[in-house]
Amino acid sequence: MAILFSNATVLPMTAVGNAPRTFAGWVGVDGNRIALVTESETAAAEFRAAHPGLREFDCRGKLVMPGLVNTHCHAAMTLQRSLADDIALMEWLHDYIWPFEARQTADDVALGMTLGVVEMLLGGVTSFVDMYYFENRCVETVERLGIRAMLGCNYFDSNVDEVMPQVEEAVRLAAGCDRVQIALAPHSPYTVSPENLLRGKRLADKYGLHLMTHISETQDEVRIVREKYGKTSVEHLDGLGLLGPKTIGAHCIHVTDSDIETLAARGVAVSHNPQSNMKISSGVAPVERMRAAGALVTVGTDGTCSNNDLDMFEEVRTAAFLQKSATGDPVALPAWEALRLATVNGARAMGYADGELGVVREGALADLIVVDLQKPHLQPVNDVVSNLVYCGKASDVDTVVVDGRIVVENRCVAGVDLPALYAGVAAAVARIKAGR
Amino acid sequence: MAILFSNATVLPMTAVGNAPRTFAGWVGVDGNRIALVTESETAAAEFRAAHPGLREFDCRGKLVMPGLVNTHCHAAMTLQRSLADDIALMEWLHDYIWPFEARQTADDVALGMTLGVVEMLLGGVTSFVDMYYFENRCVETVERLGIRAMLGCNYFDSNVDEVMPQVEEAVRLAAGCDRVQIALAPHSPYTVSPENLLRGKRLADKYGLHLMTHISETQDEVRIVREKYGKTSVEHLDGLGLLGPKTIGAHCIHVTDSDIETLAARGVAVSHNPQSNMKISSGVAPVERMRAAGALVTVGTDGTCSNNDLDMFEEVRTAAFLQKSATGDPVALPAWEALRLATVNGARAMGYADGELGVVREGALADLIVVDLQKPHLQPVNDVVSNLVYCGKASDVDTVVVDGRIVVENRCVAGVDLPALYAGVAAAVARIKAGR
Repeated sequence: MAILFSNATVLPMTAVGNAPRTFAGWVGVDGNRIALVTESETAAAEFRAAHPGLREFDCRGKLVMPGLVNTHCHAAMTLQRSLADDIALMEWLHDYIWPFEARQTADDVALGMTLGVVEMLLGGVTSFVDMYYFENRCVETVERLGIRAMLGCNYFDSNVDEVMPQVEEAVRLAAGCDRVQIALAPHSPYTVSPENLLRGKRLADKYGLHLMTHISETQDEVRIVREKYGKTSVEHLDGLGLLGPKTIGAHCIHVTDSDIETLAARGVAVSHNPQSNMKISSGVAPVERMRAAGALVTVGTDGTCSNNDLDMFEEVRTAAFLQKSATGDPVALPAWEALRLATVNGARAMGYADGELGVVREGALADLIVVDLQKPHLQPVNDVVSNLVYCGKASDVDTVVVDGRIVVENRCVAGVDLPALYAGVAAAVARIKAGR
Repeated sequence: MAILFSNATVLPMTAVGNAPRTFAGWVGVDGNRIALVTESETAAAEFRAAHPGLREFDCRGKLVMPGLVNTHCHAAMTLQRSLADDIALMEWLHDYIWPFEARQTADDVALGMTLGVVEMLLGGVTSFVDMYYFENRCVETVERLGIRAMLGCNYFDSNVDEVMPQVEEAVRLAAGCDRVQIALAPHSPYTVSPENLLRGKRLADKYGLHLMTHISETQDEVRIVREKYGKTSVEHLDGLGLLGPKTIGAHCIHVTDSDIETLAARGVAVSHNPQSNMKISSGVAPVERMRAAGALVTVGTDGTCSNNDLDMFEEVRTAAFLQKSATGDPVALPAWEALRLATVNGARAMGYADGELGVVREGALADLIVVDLQKPHLQPVNDVVSNLVYCGKASDVDTVVVDGRIVVENRCVAGVDLPALYAGVAAAVARIKAGR
């Protein structure tokens, strides 16, 4: 079914160049592609005539823009949202997170993933990169909900033998759906041996998959890796041949200038997670230095135990604020550059060519969101991009299209019964906490 | 008219002690006071019987809590929202802010104030402390919109002769409305002479008013004050006798240990504005050190040129995140303590006795908000306070009561035509920008 967004303010975003120019116009979707981007009412009328039965949305006072791309999260951890905050790391892991995770089943994970995806779709996230257990079980979940995803099968040395067959199963399950990619996700260079890192890399190469891992998230990690291997985490991973354009490195906080050069030279996508980094005191990633070095910086929310939500509007804003604060330069990471990290750059991180995703351009994949600008916090419109980045809320998104399909309309997620979902989640959490 | 919130999760907040205990219960309002806080269905039925014609809200799955208190903003600057971001300070002031402000009228300021108050009410802010021009003109605005306010008449050396009579006029205009207080607001110790600081102090004392000013916001300010007076900003203000329990100091970033002791000893209310401080690279206020010293720390949004919204949910969250990031301690400023800054402590800053405002307690002033917990980002409820502080959004507020009056219901502000307001704002901004 074709779709036409009419009388909109269009924010196209571009892969390169300066601040994007918004314009008043129309955006048409045919199949899973953007088929029309125009300022011409005549061209819009022709599109309407050529596509009988199209769905038309009157977007007066609304913004049409690319959907947001969340390049690092653990979506199923919604079950553990706010389970244990404001306590020390080791108590948190030993007394709360690990016992909870030990008890949850693949079905629990799929349920948590459902809640996470619903939250993301309602907040204008059209693509996400996940890293967790039982991703094979979640292929069906994301296919059904209509979001675009890269599902990273997380492993440690302790469970690598279980996870590798799950990767192959997930690849088979996702084969029929272009929206869903599978990836290898060794947890980190300090929790996975060189041998098992390479085992993941070989499987990734076999199927042409991405590989993601946490890199230099904490000073402890950097210390442990240095003690074990005499190298920084980046040097260690690079020495194993793990860094390339199909690698996503989450965090990259404690990196040297030389590490930054390496990340840029190899084309690694860095997922910056500012709210998580602040909340669990990991440090401040040198985003401006990484951007200056030509590294591909993107934005992610991390999981709901360390954020505690999956809100990319807040994440983009916090990315800009945190760089300005940490560098002492109020001009650092301007609004439109922050937005580029979460659209164009995120799309590249997921393996899409420039202009293929994360932009409003004829021929691009139709992942679009409609933001209602008729809200007190978005008025007046002195600068629509500043308003969007510095004031926009997840709740301002009213319509979401992924791969040409309407998945959110009037803030309702297609095919999801929210009260039933909340009840199911509450029951699962109660069961897991009780140890049943 | 009496009001009864039924079957709610109640978050009472307390002035002292540990994390607040939530409970399932009823909250009744009679006149402008909270008249019932109970877990007893029988007591609720008696209240219902004793108040024929009361408005009853079914709050199943919702939270009833004190309204948020924004202790520092320039609400009328909504007109300049996103007017000029991501540029250097001096260019910003000289080319954008000052020319704009030179052209705007008292009516423009009242219009900007209207938009700001509407935004705050919709985001659960029931009280705010303002600091701007033409506050005498805004007394009527805030009386009409139903919010609780302290209106600080901002002055510099250059306009003190104009502003002092406005203060006296504002005091007369506000005399009939308990919700509205007037205050003196000398801009800062580096832009107002000792003589004019004292002139404001004398007028404040004459009418029993609060006095507010920016304190130690930037390193430049501290340098200038030291060069002029050989003292820190806090020492300088204290030497003039300006610091006391009726003083609100915005920012307090670049303060010494001795300054912190002084702020605590004098009972000064500190307004911490983390998003503004991050966005314009002012530095990080030592909130944890101030709290440890016994200073009264509160939270404010600052104006919409440096934030760019008036969202206290985000501000409370950012306060917690920023302290954890800056101190390197993930246990710093826990969720419930951050929430106390924005409720109980804010109420004290505005001169209310402990237990009088900012709490859900029988006898307290009825400033209450209802937060809808049936949102994907607020499920499951492992910890309602963590969810609220780390995931809650302004848009989750569905009902707001100030001084016993329903001012927001189903996310509609009583008596406000939003499209007309937006159109009026757009026209005023266009006129001011065009220099007409």
